[in-house]
Amino acid sequence: MDQALTDRFNELEVGQSATYARTISEADIVLFAGVSGDDNPVHLNEIYAAESMFKGRIAHGMLTASYISTVIGTRLPGPGSIYLGQNLKFRAPVRAGDTVTATVTIKEIDPAKRRLTLTTICTVGDTAVVEGEAVVMLPKAEDVKATAEGAAA
Amino acid sequence: MDQALTDRFNELEVGQSATYARTISEADIVLFAGVSGDDNPVHLNEIYAAESMFKGRIAHGMLTASYISTVIGTRLPGPGSIYLGQNLKFRAPVRAGDTVTATVTIKEIDPAKRRLTLTTICTVGDTAVVEGEAVVMLPKAEDVKATAEGAAA
Repeated sequence: MDQALTDRFNELEVGQSATYARTISEADIVLFAGVSGDDNPVHLNEIYAAESMFKGRIAHGMLTASYISTVIGTRLPGPGSIYLGQNLKFRAPVRAGDTVTATVTIKEIDPAKRRLTLTTICTVGDTAVVEGEAVVMLPKAEDVKATAEGAAA
Repeated sequence: MDQALTDRFNELEVGQSATYARTISEADIVLFAGVSGDDNPVHLNEIYAAESMFKGRIAHGMLTASYISTVIGTRLPGPGSIYLGQNLKFRAPVRAGDTVTATVTIKEIDPAKRRLTLTTICTVGDTAVVEGEAVVMLPKAEDVKATAEGAAA
């Protein structure tokens, strides 16, 4: 398995990018509150949130950030990649109705370690709402097979 | 609003901590896949995942990381705090049935900027599964009020 992805490693180039775009709905925020346990009233209580510095309910920053993981896990580099790290800076609030575009771009390739450094940004229109970098690793197909067979930890 | 939290700023001390613990269920993983759009088969397809280096389905790293946001947004410092940044290192896989404890500890306090640096760790038993740091800001109550009234951006 993951043969296609592994063979693709040598085809990866600095500057390649992929995106995932999605309109955040009120339902997404409610579901994220449930799945994370984060019921901070700034996400769920319009009366509270209207008096906050955000002047209304905002989405969880980690919900927006999750779209970065979606690009990495499904598109670039895609299934089989191992997510090692992610830095996030939350730049601006995101609200229900906003359409977020998460973009992942290859910044550095380390062939020896089979690691990629990726720049990651989420935007709403021209506004960067989340910025950061990710590090992912692409195991060799034979390593995956050996591990699956119990030959390696 | 946020008066209680703002008054509490001066009571915060380096070393204070708070936790959120939760058993990750298969339903959580399914819901997170839906809300994030991350349908990577390593999370949803047991036959695929069994042949991966993880030898079975694992939770999304960002699902585990979301529990850090839960501690910050609901407990320490709690509602009213502004999440500015988060670094994450994904150390080990988490599976349905694992009980994750997210712990946030105050590492540094910057009274001038009203910022906190927090160490953040998620553990399953004795294993660190996600580690990192967060930066949060606590606005002054009067700044929040001024902003809500439109007197400031």
